[in-house]
Amino acid sequence: MSIEDSIIEDGSGREPLVPKAVVSRLSLYLRELQHLSRSEQKTISSSKLGRALGFTAAQVRKDFAYFGQFGYPGIGYRCDELIEQIKKILGTNKTWPVVLVGCGNMGQALLGYRGFAKQGFDVVAVVDVDKGVLGKTYQGLVVDHIDLLPEIVKRHSLRVAILAVPATAAADAADQILKSGITGILNFAPVTLNVPKNVSLIEVDLAMELEQLAFSVFQKNQGQ
Amino acid sequence: MSIEDSIIEDGSGREPLVPKAVVSRLSLYLRELQHLSRSEQKTISSSKLGRALGFTAAQVRKDFAYFGQFGYPGIGYRCDELIEQIKKILGTNKTWPVVLVGCGNMGQALLGYRGFAKQGFDVVAVVDVDKGVLGKTYQGLVVDHIDLLPEIVKRHSLRVAILAVPATAAADAADQILKSGITGILNFAPVTLNVPKNVSLIEVDLAMELEQLAFSVFQKNQGQ
Repeated sequence: MSIEDSIIEDGSGREPLVPKAVVSRLSLYLRELQHLSRSEQKTISSSKLGRALGFTAAQVRKDFAYFGQFGYPGIGYRCDELIEQIKKILGTNKTWPVVLVGCGNMGQALLGYRGFAKQGFDVVAVVDVDKGVLGKTYQGLVVDHIDLLPEIVKRHSLRVAILAVPATAAADAADQILKSGITGILNFAPVTLNVPKNVSLIEVDLAMELEQLAFSVFQKNQGQ
Repeated sequence: MSIEDSIIEDGSGREPLVPKAVVSRLSLYLRELQHLSRSEQKTISSSKLGRALGFTAAQVRKDFAYFGQFGYPGIGYRCDELIEQIKKILGTNKTWPVVLVGCGNMGQALLGYRGFAKQGFDVVAVVDVDKGVLGKTYQGLVVDHIDLLPEIVKRHSLRVAILAVPATAAADAADQILKSGITGILNFAPVTLNVPKNVSLIEVDLAMELEQLAFSVFQKNQGQ
């Protein structure tokens, strides 16, 4: 995740829309609201929502103001309503069909990852180049050759690919993904990809999680 | 990752040490400094470092002030020196031996993940309960039964475990991890674990990455 205050551009060359940091905070608000909703809390004020996450009430209101007016005077936000609004803003209120590129260990692990479906990502096709997996069925999906990607993308109107190939194969696989018309890549390959400006790229990097864990364990050991 | 302004406690009951948000930002500074160092930039000012990440110069200086005085008047920070200092603060300047709990698809994918070694995490043992993998060798490591965990933890002086078992097995595996004396868990199982306060827990959750990707692709499609 990036906390940069850089801007998400829409590739149209028009005025940029929303700072990345705001979109990151939307994810955090959503997580907190879902937590509140599970605890059967119906409403929350901007100051309490902010306090739970370390932001000011003004920051919370400013963030939501990019997208509309969601609070009620004297009530605050209605949790379930705001959850739906944020999902609508993020685009996770609908299902995104996606193709998984790479069906090795990481790919197979991701096929079993329930979080994709929970966030509205539905893996509808799997491609690879390895004869060891081509034609085999994983989680109900037959592995096709990556050369079929353009057809698959067209048939399912795909926008998004999950890239889970070894580092050495990543650049070639990314080329084929981009040629097929895909405009969003979630990259699990441990390499940095260069993609055109109109393509969205999210690199999954565990470095930060590992550093936070190291720091936390380190601190606790010093306390002993 | 959490951007909460909550505090990382050291479990000793003493005054808490450093806000989590500061530790998160240390990871971002480190990433940017490593990028600069690869571009052979020798020094950087707090304002330029902040600007690259969307923070003010004051924020940058305040964050580092928790840990000491790292800048030079009229020069700024020396990139390579600050990289080493941050690694030392985070505890990633040394090698952490870790045990991988779970050697299914996710576990095997993680065994092949080079990022762990890069951050100083060295997987020295693998445990599971599945007869299909017990006794087999993956990346040079023989899979032991999870019941051997206390011995393994003692033999290697382990502090950290990576949990990569299916959701249904996560609670039991976490129990065995905690009983073995481990004090830090990196959890890839898609469940929320409850751990004692003296245990560090980092939950790897792809939800945020998926939401950021959805939003970005969504915006670009609207621009068409």
